[in-house]
Amino acid sequence: VAVIDLGSNSWRLVVFTFVPGNWWKRTDELYETVRIGEGLESSGRLSDEAMRRGLETLGVFARFCAANGLGPDRVHAIATSAIRDAANGEEFARAARAATGLRVEILSAEDEARYGYIAAVNTSTLVDGVVLELGGGSMQLIAVANRRATQLCSFPIGAVRLTEHFLPGEGPAKKKELERARSYIRGSLGAVSWLTGSGDRLVGIGGAVRNLAAAAQRASEQIDIGVQGFVITPDALANLIGTLTSLPVAERGEVPGIKPGRGDIILAAALAIEAVLELGGFDGIEVTEAGLREGIFLARELLADGTPLFDNVREAAVRNLAIQYESDMAHVEHVARLSLQMFDSLVEGGLFEPKPGERELLWAASMLHDVGMTISYDDHHKHSRYLIVSAELPGFDPRERALIAQISRYHRKGAPKLGEIAALAREGDEDLLDRCSVILRLAEHLERGRDQSVRQARLRANGKGVDLHLDASGDLTLPQWSVERYGDSEVFERVFGRRLLIG
Amino acid sequence: VAVIDLGSNSWRLVVFTFVPGNWWKRTDELYETVRIGEGLESSGRLSDEAMRRGLETLGVFARFCAANGLGPDRVHAIATSAIRDAANGEEFARAARAATGLRVEILSAEDEARYGYIAAVNTSTLVDGVVLELGGGSMQLIAVANRRATQLCSFPIGAVRLTEHFLPGEGPAKKKELERARSYIRGSLGAVSWLTGSGDRLVGIGGAVRNLAAAAQRASEQIDIGVQGFVITPDALANLIGTLTSLPVAERGEVPGIKPGRGDIILAAALAIEAVLELGGFDGIEVTEAGLREGIFLARELLADGTPLFDNVREAAVRNLAIQYESDMAHVEHVARLSLQMFDSLVEGGLFEPKPGERELLWAASMLHDVGMTISYDDHHKHSRYLIVSAELPGFDPRERALIAQISRYHRKGAPKLGEIAALAREGDEDLLDRCSVILRLAEHLERGRDQSVRQARLRANGKGVDLHLDASGDLTLPQWSVERYGDSEVFERVFGRRLLIG
Repeated sequence: VAVIDLGSNSWRLVVFTFVPGNWWKRTDELYETVRIGEGLESSGRLSDEAMRRGLETLGVFARFCAANGLGPDRVHAIATSAIRDAANGEEFARAARAATGLRVEILSAEDEARYGYIAAVNTSTLVDGVVLELGGGSMQLIAVANRRATQLCSFPIGAVRLTEHFLPGEGPAKKKELERARSYIRGSLGAVSWLTGSGDRLVGIGGAVRNLAAAAQRASEQIDIGVQGFVITPDALANLIGTLTSLPVAERGEVPGIKPGRGDIILAAALAIEAVLELGGFDGIEVTEAGLREGIFLARELLADGTPLFDNVREAAVRNLAIQYESDMAHVEHVARLSLQMFDSLVEGGLFEPKPGERELLWAASMLHDVGMTISYDDHHKHSRYLIVSAELPGFDPRERALIAQISRYHRKGAPKLGEIAALAREGDEDLLDRCSVILRLAEHLERGRDQSVRQARLRANGKGVDLHLDASGDLTLPQWSVERYGDSEVFERVFGRRLLIG
Repeated sequence: VAVIDLGSNSWRLVVFTFVPGNWWKRTDELYETVRIGEGLESSGRLSDEAMRRGLETLGVFARFCAANGLGPDRVHAIATSAIRDAANGEEFARAARAATGLRVEILSAEDEARYGYIAAVNTSTLVDGVVLELGGGSMQLIAVANRRATQLCSFPIGAVRLTEHFLPGEGPAKKKELERARSYIRGSLGAVSWLTGSGDRLVGIGGAVRNLAAAAQRASEQIDIGVQGFVITPDALANLIGTLTSLPVAERGEVPGIKPGRGDIILAAALAIEAVLELGGFDGIEVTEAGLREGIFLARELLADGTPLFDNVREAAVRNLAIQYESDMAHVEHVARLSLQMFDSLVEGGLFEPKPGERELLWAASMLHDVGMTISYDDHHKHSRYLIVSAELPGFDPRERALIAQISRYHRKGAPKLGEIAALAREGDEDLLDRCSVILRLAEHLERGRDQSVRQARLRANGKGVDLHLDASGDLTLPQWSVERYGDSEVFERVFGRRLLIG
């Protein structure tokens, strides 16, 4: 299906390919900077020139849909703030229908906020807090309690609109301009009583949020791992605002992470987010790559049959990725089972103290360790790392994604090293990587025949060693050979301080 | 199917997954250093200890086959030199059958050479020349004329055998030892009258050849692109022999590129290859990753129905890779068609002089440009590059593979750069990359609807510009928008020195 998002600034057609209940991914995209809202602030109407650009672009999108066999029932064309607020928005929608055959649906501010919320709670682990959606025309804030939206508000402080009003110059921003913009934003948001004390988590969506996250990420880390789950702290945002303010508009798009086409509105976007962080007293804003388009797709297609919420966002993300690459799900599910059995038995036996979230990272890496086989058997551990680092894996932050990738990288051999991901790591992550890699390696070798014949595996202290207890339905020749030959008992001993005793 | 290769030094089980006439790949592998030939030189028999190790390993392999549902008709267990030459080789095969149920087939020296030849001519562009196969026990040389094997010879100068005879020490090799080894090798090979004047190409297979290539490659280049198609020159080999000779045996496995388990026999292997290069007056030895196992698989499974030769090795390799990743073959085939039409029309119009092989590289990149979509739509051009660099793509050498990858990397946007692959490039490759990237980009945008509606595209000089002539079955809105919006006319003008004129 295609979702067309007719925003105030840019228009985008995104194709989603999916098997309901199984997997989904974005598979194509068209983009055009239409600026349909240009001049809207002063006239209250879409200009003739903007409408002409809009119809031309929609004509191209319609051709694309026809060429790709996407009939009207498989295209969602959604207009938001600019077209909604323009006096002649309905007129434009009619003209679009007549010229291209596409039915343009003008979303209410409330529905726009709702689809943003659906995108955010399905691609983050937000349970209680706030979702911020920043577009060209408006900003939506949605209060979330127990994963349900409780309040939806829309404010006319979109990045294009703020820019036209308060930051129209070409040079570095003036102090006066910033003051007036900030005071206007604060005034608009002042009415939201629930923003303070709404919980400590804020999840942000929209292109401007993603660009600011990319800029903050580039400034702090080396590895190219994407912004999914990245947190922009108030300090990082203040630094970015300082940089952007000092630059003429034409150079703001050259700040690493900011897209050239967004350079002119990015400062206004940053100011709007700054105000929300301050008013709500948030520790930062977590970024998700998903947005309105994903919200529409999830609510109307993938999850159309019930409550549009994944039961467990992380599990859904890991399974979605695994299914796209993995030809043997029974194998990886079983490796995950064996890994967790050994992990739990070591923890129960007091052989180590896990870090928060460690068990879930081990599970995710166990599910994903073999995805690199898609590329080639040789070096598939390295390919798995590449594929995991390249995936969004919503629900996990960059550090967690990097650790899952690195555990998978070391599921076969070698002494685990943080390497390139060291800049993302926290204290103790080196030990976590060691432990999870060694456990996953053992599980993989116990399941070397890919036939689930080793049903249970537990590790129990025995004197100065650790016994490997197996419950198996078949012959143990292959798993024992595999563990002895490749299980790397030296690494095990270094990591757990005890010898591994087999059989 | 599984192919088990019971070599003199190492034993390996390789699983091939395939759809006949469509695609194939290696999907699993078990490896054990068995050294079945240990002591064979002095006694003429497999030792009891070696037989015990062999039966144990075969037991593990048999369990693996059973666990993976590979019945006897889908397992080819092949014994070569050591077991063939031992007085008790048949006895071992019978014991193996009794203990594990696996039927071990003892290949004649001639058949061994033949399967090596089949692997080599199906993974290189060799038409006339020689194939060298180096194992632990023996070396096979096969004369090839018009892709057919005309002579097959086997010599008892395998790397394990030579090592036991002439280089038994642990320290650096002594001059005397080297002299005696060289003179023995030359004596053995002296009988081959056809080696001189057999054409100027030599293709080598076997683990030792691969390791020597990896070592030579590490010494000369930066990018990790695999040894498929790499050429070891006589000079590079002489340097390696110098290095290896000066090191004690235990340190030879630490030379980058040499596997630790092969350190003790690698010098003997290098000496054997050196002699062939000298006697035949070859410019170097081209390496292929394929070997006996692939030969067995190709001859007995994938190509079992006719002459076991791909019609065109490069085309087969590109298609094999494309089919594994590409969900829309009609699209990439058509992009390739449009690319070549534009390429040919530019050449015919005298607008540039192509480099040798340039057209074929453009074709390959056109077929493979979208493989990265498997990973994600975003950055799929970068993912395509990664996947192509990670593939063997037999028939192309490292420089060619790097260029195909880099052309694909730049099929969407940006100014093409050699970047990391500069170390592999020849003079003029920067221009080749520019030209092919720009042409592929145009073809991709002309086929943006993925519906093959633009049937033909040609570029013809018109004054100071170049006209794009299209023959299309449908509306041109989408291709024209796509070319104008993304076709990067600035890059076109820089590369071809003329403006691109559309419509």
